[in-house]
Amino acid sequence: MTKPRRIIDVSSMLEYEIFNSTSFIFNIAVAGNERQRVLEETLEIVPDTETHWFDLNDEGCRSIRLSAEPGYLKVCYRATVELSPELGCAPNLGEVPHRELPVEVLPYLNPSRYCESDRLARFAWKEFGGLASGYERVNSICDWVNDCIDYQAGSTDASSSACDVLLQRAGVCRDFAHVGVALCRALGLPARYVSGYSVGLEPPDFHGFFEVYLEDDWYLFDPTRMAPVNGFVRIGLGRDAADAPFANIVGYAILCNMSVTAMARGGESLPDSGKSAVSSA
Amino acid sequence: MTKPRRIIDVSSMLEYEIFNSTSFIFNIAVAGNERQRVLEETLEIVPDTETHWFDLNDEGCRSIRLSAEPGYLKVCYRATVELSPELGCAPNLGEVPHRELPVEVLPYLNPSRYCESDRLARFAWKEFGGLASGYERVNSICDWVNDCIDYQAGSTDASSSACDVLLQRAGVCRDFAHVGVALCRALGLPARYVSGYSVGLEPPDFHGFFEVYLEDDWYLFDPTRMAPVNGFVRIGLGRDAADAPFANIVGYAILCNMSVTAMARGGESLPDSGKSAVSSA
Amino acid sequence: MTKPRRIIDVSSMLEYEIFNSTSFIFNIAVAGNERQRVLEETLEIVPDTETHWFDLNDEGCRSIRLSAEPGYLKVCYRATVELSPELGCAPNLGEVPHRELPVEVLPYLNPSRYCESDRLARFAWKEFGGLASGYERVNSICDWVNDCIDYQAGSTDASSSACDVLLQRAGVCRDFAHVGVALCRALGLPARYVSGYSVGLEPPDFHGFFEVYLEDDWYLFDPTRMAPVNGFVRIGLGRDAADAPFANIVGYAILCNMSVTAMARGGESLPDSGKSAVSSA
Amino acid sequence: MTKPRRIIDVSSMLEYEIFNSTSFIFNIAVAGNERQRVLEETLEIVPDTETHWFDLNDEGCRSIRLSAEPGYLKVCYRATVELSPELGCAPNLGEVPHRELPVEVLPYLNPSRYCESDRLARFAWKEFGGLASGYERVNSICDWVNDCIDYQAGSTDASSSACDVLLQRAGVCRDFAHVGVALCRALGLPARYVSGYSVGLEPPDFHGFFEVYLEDDWYLFDPTRMAPVNGFVRIGLGRDAADAPFANIVGYAILCNMSVTAMARGGESLPDSGKSAVSSA
Repeated sequence: MTKPRRIIDVSSMLEYEIFNSTSFIFNIAVAGNERQRVLEETLEIVPDTETHWFDLNDEGCRSIRLSAEPGYLKVCYRATVELSPELGCAPNLGEVPHRELPVEVLPYLNPSRYCESDRLARFAWKEFGGLASGYERVNSICDWVNDCIDYQAGSTDASSSACDVLLQRAGVCRDFAHVGVALCRALGLPARYVSGYSVGLEPPDFHGFFEVYLEDDWYLFDPTRMAPVNGFVRIGLGRDAADAPFANIVGYAILCNMSVTAMARGGESLPDSGKSAVSSA
Repeated sequence: MTKPRRIIDVSSMLEYEIFNSTSFIFNIAVAGNERQRVLEETLEIVPDTETHWFDLNDEGCRSIRLSAEPGYLKVCYRATVELSPELGCAPNLGEVPHRELPVEVLPYLNPSRYCESDRLARFAWKEFGGLASGYERVNSICDWVNDCIDYQAGSTDASSSACDVLLQRAGVCRDFAHVGVALCRALGLPARYVSGYSVGLEPPDFHGFFEVYLEDDWYLFDPTRMAPVNGFVRIGLGRDAADAPFANIVGYAILCNMSVTAMARGGESLPDSGKSAVSSA
Repeated sequence: MTKPRRIIDVSSMLEYEIFNSTSFIFNIAVAGNERQRVLEETLEIVPDTETHWFDLNDEGCRSIRLSAEPGYLKVCYRATVELSPELGCAPNLGEVPHRELPVEVLPYLNPSRYCESDRLARFAWKEFGGLASGYERVNSICDWVNDCIDYQAGSTDASSSACDVLLQRAGVCRDFAHVGVALCRALGLPARYVSGYSVGLEPPDFHGFFEVYLEDDWYLFDPTRMAPVNGFVRIGLGRDAADAPFANIVGYAILCNMSVTAMARGGESLPDSGKSAVSSA
Repeated sequence: MTKPRRIIDVSSMLEYEIFNSTSFIFNIAVAGNERQRVLEETLEIVPDTETHWFDLNDEGCRSIRLSAEPGYLKVCYRATVELSPELGCAPNLGEVPHRELPVEVLPYLNPSRYCESDRLARFAWKEFGGLASGYERVNSICDWVNDCIDYQAGSTDASSSACDVLLQRAGVCRDFAHVGVALCRALGLPARYVSGYSVGLEPPDFHGFFEVYLEDDWYLFDPTRMAPVNGFVRIGLGRDAADAPFANIVGYAILCNMSVTAMARGGESLPDSGKSAVSSA
């Protein structure tokens, strides 16, 4: 196993105009775990506002909660992260029979709001059932998604699900991930949605990808093939995008400005490992 | 052009238990047109009931209307039909550019209840846009439908549409036809649903197929490939199955028994022309 | 019966940028029938282009067909219409039992792409089944739609159906009409979509409303209550908006400018007859 | 606060015919918590099969996992439970502002597979937004669901969601609960699905209801009003029914027989507390 280490700087800046007393939960802070070490981070809120950080789950994902009154709100987050993905002999990763799946991954077999895997069993088995199982099968699903679905900004909205996208054949990163998740679950593979920063994404934005449980761990996949998976910096995760939006807003606020960055230190370009396994948690 | 003639006997028997005064419209009588001549037909209703026959359209399709009071109702229809389909060099049939389509076929480009072609434009163009146009493209669509969708009794119900079936990948003849219609319309090909009797269908039942407007006429296609298209005896047609159900019932009646037959005279077996064009009207 | 007459001037101007050879069908010309007499009309196309006018149906609706090459296209239509709606004792209009419905209105009982009446039978009967039948029931449906659904520009798109709108509770005129049509059909009332010009609509635009077959004729209803129904000038009609879009475009063209006007001569304001029956054809 | 105690005997028996090596997860064992004490329980499997019990969550819900080979499988579960629901002055229970909700209830605000709360915000606010907040609002939602939706066995299937049921206006207990959950979440109230045994349910079966987080705890609601909520014995819970099916089956097995019972000891009839709050966890 090689254990490359790289240093990545990420940032996000969100500006809101707020019209009513509003409650926010932000998923913009990078997760901390053994393969993704937060070396340094700052959060600046204008006007100065009390924040409450809490754990979104027990895998190092953290949410930031705050309340704001009418007016202007600016949220600036910056972090430096040391990434040490484990890159290995991915193609050999196998699928785990249902009877042997760890209890904690079982919920990721259930259908969710944007990943209606229960409706896609026959679809998934007819298209992908005959392939070699394991990593290669998931990779084939990503190839298929990448091939059959057009990446097109504005083609979907917050209510679009994997089934919608499979019919209309267009979407954005979140939709690509949802289709991947839904097809994997339909085949009996535990799968979950991951949000994050991504080095090399053009135009820069938050990114959405997904993970599949294979052999003994979760492995990252990105059917958009828009950036190297070893430049992904994880923020949140969940059953689908409903569980990890960059901002959850209850009240009345309008996002009027937003910028996101992710840069590898030293400017060295990352090898495109879109086809390698990156153990993730 | 060869003009084979064949004699086909069809029948349908429907028994209802009626609980309230009920109004029926039956689409069980064979259509009469120049390629499908009705040599003889009988309709028997028990108890004896006044019927009103009317033209469903100007292509020879006829509906039968009657009202019935609570109790038992039995409807028996029998006909002998002479079929003279035109079988020709189908593979050469071309598509007609939108600007040249006859005015009367234009409505069959519109999306309908069970054929949401508006949602499937990208799907259809990505899957079938690169193929040679005309008859061969429609035939490829039928091959694809036949290959990708499982024929399975009970897998759909009266509210299932082409989109539902494309996701669940299972359906019955009506669903196969709806998917064919929706994909053709999405590609700019006028397409419509046809109901009928079908020699050789196993188990015997009413059948649903579809027609596409090519070159200068409507041509029959059956993506189920369950029976030879030159043994199809047309009953009704419309934008989709909503326009030509075998029985339209307003009131409260339960179908308690039903049988359908279709036999070619002389018992000669029909050549399987599933891949030949059969000009239809 | 009073037979008021009024003179209305309408116009529409559409400008397109065309990128490929494109085929258009416009539904912008006013229909001519005994209650809506076209006194004068002009159609100007820049650059000068051959047009083909054809009857959309046998009720006086007319479509305009043309083909255009890449570049700029401007379509200007103007007409002066004499409207003589029959205003009568609407509240007494009764429903026609299914068994007595004229054959030609039967297709307007079928579910259509944007009016899935088959899915709404129980909904419609539970909400409106107990009301007095006839005109008053339809008027109650319009009140309910107006009350329960918010008129909000941009809340729906070309794929939104009555079911979508019933869930999200927001839409535009086309959606209000679709919900009205779907609920009426679900109750056994033939109903159809009508497009037109409308005096007093703010902001000015094409308008969508619907008609229900009662007693012996079609009657106009507009659940948006945004303009007096006796200022409606009919263009097209069909099962739903799919049958009468103001422009049907096959090719690649972008609408870059559009304006619509409808003014009653003499500037006299029309009495708001949103609750009166206006016999329509 | 009164703290009634009652003893309830429950059982379930499931018989399967198994055609392939099959992996099962059963949610049939009663949960153990401070208000629901398991006095005694037995699980009998024929043929004798090794089972693995695991915690579905940290609220006392337990799942049973086993694998079975082709042949016959019978699962019999019996338990005696002491229920001590807290019955209090429910109508005074208030809603908790979003900013003050405990972190662990936040996921129950997210839309899920069968509870598409994101699509129902306007619906919920227009119907229920004007009501007094808190327990009474949830109770009004239950009244509305009970009133507007018909309980009808067979009207829905495993893919039916709250939106489907809101349109078709018919469903079973699971659907009633899903609609309640979806509407509550749309209003900002954390809500979750609960499965269980229920004294007095006719015909006897597993039951589905839901819980809403109010004031400081989760409270039970049952919009079917088919049995007293203080006779509910909890099994599992989750975002919706996908998280707590009585059996999750991967393989090929057919349920060929099933019976469920729930009886209060001493035969004393339980007061119908359908309108009382029953604190639940």
